Amino acid sequence: MTVRTDEEHAAQMARKKAVQDRIVAERNVEKGLLIVHTGKGKGKTTAALGMVVRAAGHGMKVGVVQFVKGAMSTGEAAILANLPGVEFRTMGEGFTWDTQDRTRDTQVARTAWEEVRRMVADPSYAMVVADELNIVLRYGYLPVEEVLQAFAARPPMTHVVVTGRNAPDALIEAADLATEMRELKHPFREQGVKAQAGVEF
Amino acid sequence: MTVRTDEEHAAQMARKKAVQDRIVAERNVEKGLLIVHTGKGKGKTTAALGMVVRAAGHGMKVGVVQFVKGAMSTGEAAILANLPGVEFRTMGEGFTWDTQDRTRDTQVARTAWEEVRRMVADPSYAMVVADELNIVLRYGYLPVEEVLQAFAARPPMTHVVVTGRNAPDALIEAADLATEMRELKHPFREQGVKAQAGVEF
Repeated sequence: MTVRTDEEHAAQMARKKAVQDRIVAERNVEKGLLIVHTGKGKGKTTAALGMVVRAAGHGMKVGVVQFVKGAMSTGEAAILANLPGVEFRTMGEGFTWDTQDRTRDTQVARTAWEEVRRMVADPSYAMVVADELNIVLRYGYLPVEEVLQAFAARPPMTHVVVTGRNAPDALIEAADLATEMRELKHPFREQGVKAQAGVEF
Repeated sequence: MTVRTDEEHAAQMARKKAVQDRIVAERNVEKGLLIVHTGKGKGKTTAALGMVVRAAGHGMKVGVVQFVKGAMSTGEAAILANLPGVEFRTMGEGFTWDTQDRTRDTQVARTAWEEVRRMVADPSYAMVVADELNIVLRYGYLPVEEVLQAFAARPPMTHVVVTGRNAPDALIEAADLATEMRELKHPFREQGVKAQAGVEF
């Protein structure tokens, strides 16, 4: 660590504050954002869940559609569903490698997607979360074009959050805010640690 | 996208399921994890907040100490504080570049840290979140060694979650699970979008 005097430190902080204040002042656009959480690391669904809590805390109406059962635990789902203004729908039937039936998976994906489409078209929803939609797109259970079209046609102030690894390039291209959760270290692989309550589910 | 017959698809899914089942069966270690969310991207604090909701949903006792005021909104803090089993403490005094006073910042960091240290030493807490602790470590307001020592001495089943950009290498080294939130796209910079309720705060 660099050793600085208190005066140098204060001067550096003052410069940072000036930069920060200027950046904030220059930002004046308000719009509904298309937000993507992707990557192989942890936190994609969990961060979306945090955003739901945050939005609900502001009294916003939020719709959450879970494309893959098990991505959120029943405990989380219960808490989400009990937050005022939050509508929670689980449409999946277990991870896709549990079913091995493409026709059924495609139907389930379609049903979940119709729910998302209804929510994003309805301006009363301030935020719509399509949890693990990327998996469904990855397996070709839904056409990316149809999804992007529905997002593009949504009311201008609606935030949409899409999660799941392997986000299609076209979705990242369309996104306002895209974050990759990158695994630096993972105890499952390295230490044989099993999924634990409060961390994994 | 690769075009596959339904049979090929089913076979691929069956293989994935077999691999998945084997991996899960091999994992049998249960332990408190040291979890780090770092990187310049979004979602570090939000994912930690999601973990708090998750743990609270399991009836776990969770302590949250916020080192930097404003990292979570008052709305979020209110929701967190109202979850059964969650103790929430805000110790910060605004972002560090607002104060420009290293002596005061060091004192605030120390007070917040004593709260974290008390919680991690108390086995009744299943999870302790030190939100934005990395910023404090980055500026040298607390010695990393002291932090790592307290984490290492904690009860074996306690999960600790540390957030903030610029996590020290020694902390990542000590972590069981470390995730880098990497910015792929950000509307603030690219479109002049301002911080909005439900997304940023």
